Amino acid sequence: MKHQRISHEQGAIYEFAPDLEPITVVESGAALTVETRDSLDGAVQTEEDVFESVPAEVNAATGPVAVTDAEPGDVLRVDIEAIRLAEDQGRVITIDGFGLLDGDEDIEAPKTRMTPVDGDTLSFEGIDVAVDPVIGTIGVAPESESYSTLVPHDHGGNMDTTDMTAGSTAYFPVFQEGAMLAMGDCKAAMADGEMCGTGSEIATEIDVRLSVIKEPETAIQRPVVETDDAWKTIASAETLEEACRLANRDAIALLEAEHDLTSTDAYLLSSLVADLEISQVVDPLLTVRNAVPKTHITAPF
Amino acid sequence: MKHQRISHEQGAIYEFAPDLEPITVVESGAALTVETRDSLDGAVQTEEDVFESVPAEVNAATGPVAVTDAEPGDVLRVDIEAIRLAEDQGRVITIDGFGLLDGDEDIEAPKTRMTPVDGDTLSFEGIDVAVDPVIGTIGVAPESESYSTLVPHDHGGNMDTTDMTAGSTAYFPVFQEGAMLAMGDCKAAMADGEMCGTGSEIATEIDVRLSVIKEPETAIQRPVVETDDAWKTIASAETLEEACRLANRDAIALLEAEHDLTSTDAYLLSSLVADLEISQVVDPLLTVRNAVPKTHITAPF
Repeated sequence: MKHQRISHEQGAIYEFAPDLEPITVVESGAALTVETRDSLDGAVQTEEDVFESVPAEVNAATGPVAVTDAEPGDVLRVDIEAIRLAEDQGRVITIDGFGLLDGDEDIEAPKTRMTPVDGDTLSFEGIDVAVDPVIGTIGVAPESESYSTLVPHDHGGNMDTTDMTAGSTAYFPVFQEGAMLAMGDCKAAMADGEMCGTGSEIATEIDVRLSVIKEPETAIQRPVVETDDAWKTIASAETLEEACRLANRDAIALLEAEHDLTSTDAYLLSSLVADLEISQVVDPLLTVRNAVPKTHITAPF
Repeated sequence: MKHQRISHEQGAIYEFAPDLEPITVVESGAALTVETRDSLDGAVQTEEDVFESVPAEVNAATGPVAVTDAEPGDVLRVDIEAIRLAEDQGRVITIDGFGLLDGDEDIEAPKTRMTPVDGDTLSFEGIDVAVDPVIGTIGVAPESESYSTLVPHDHGGNMDTTDMTAGSTAYFPVFQEGAMLAMGDCKAAMADGEMCGTGSEIATEIDVRLSVIKEPETAIQRPVVETDDAWKTIASAETLEEACRLANRDAIALLEAEHDLTSTDAYLLSSLVADLEISQVVDPLLTVRNAVPKTHITAPF
């Protein structure tokens, strides 16, 4: 199969909508390189470039890509094979009205710091930070409502999840014909939480392989990510507590299917083995994961 | 120095109060073995033993131990050297009115599962789970208010934090003369989140070494735990979001002191390197950690 390359010039969205038009169509199994802009569309090039408020459009997501044969009820598998930085500096910013410590009297907002990259390291005010690229926004066409690329929900979107990195495999429920995958908003580095509202935002090239899982053994309503050692359910909601409930419910469903347990027993087991993790605490909906080690779940699909 | 052993028969508390009387007094540097009951005081020995509501007294904390010379403003260092299981089965339970999924129609409450232990493994309904003991409740006399041993706060208490394990070092602010350390509520295994309301609750023997840090370089208001690779601030609050704010504020203070940064720069740096983590989502106050890798913080004290 031909290896395709798509760029934001070919198409990028600021809204995950049910009725997206694809910029390209690929077959299940296709490998693809996706060029992404930084989340602020290149508007921040020096530390003098600051935002007085959150821009109307952020997190341009290159795509959407339709995958032949993907139909509602299927699962779209996205192998994240590599993420290469496409510029030699990222930027970490905070904006008045945004971020975990918004309103704290000791925090100055707006503020921008440029983070020059040298090989595997970026520099923050002279402090070396390991480069570990993350896809901040990745998702598919939602079931019925539309979500701006600032918002995470069951379709994925702005999940800001550090596990969306090279070597991981993301799984999305297919809500619409073709699935309509789009991604962008990458970071050269980001902490779980993304407290100030950004990581080190940067343009990238992402190598992915897309495949459709027909009639999955386990149906999913929300994204799941597979890392080296865990299967992680991902949920976004208005509070972290509600996101925890949804993610735990989804993890319990995986444990039930694997071990033929009742929901109650899967719940008790999750309390022993399935770590709740924070993805981000700053977007309009908040995102958590529930990580079940592969010792306890083999292959849900 | 003589190695002391203390047991719950000598004394155990169900409330961390400002005016605790010690059951023993040790000098800074003392090694101690602490025997702890399970969090339910042995009331659950079979799967027929269930609770219709949360008992008035849970999480008996063996102690308190006064440490000579510990004075308000100091830091109490607790090296957790070993945690040995003292019985051959734990129990994981859920109670109506308690737990992340309380009220979910698919979850049966009350429910008890016994988890027999064999060497390094416990069994949950025939599923092997690695034993990894955790101290659920550990803390010192608070500054002014009293807290039941069900509640975590700035003095520590029921933090249900998986990092409170052998090999870690916990640090507590000293609020009262002698610090007054007490601990209990251990688990043979527990997930981050403690979703159903318990881990595998079990009696243990804990080896600790206690030392007083006089005039600490960095003052702390809340507990901190040092693991092999990170310094983690710990905060408890009514919502996970508020706990995240407190823990991030404390992590920022550590980054400021280490790197001579402004609060704003430390905040931006934390968003690149300091992972927010969930301790528990089920107690009357919720607990999170903010983990700063040791590559970015050497020694705050």
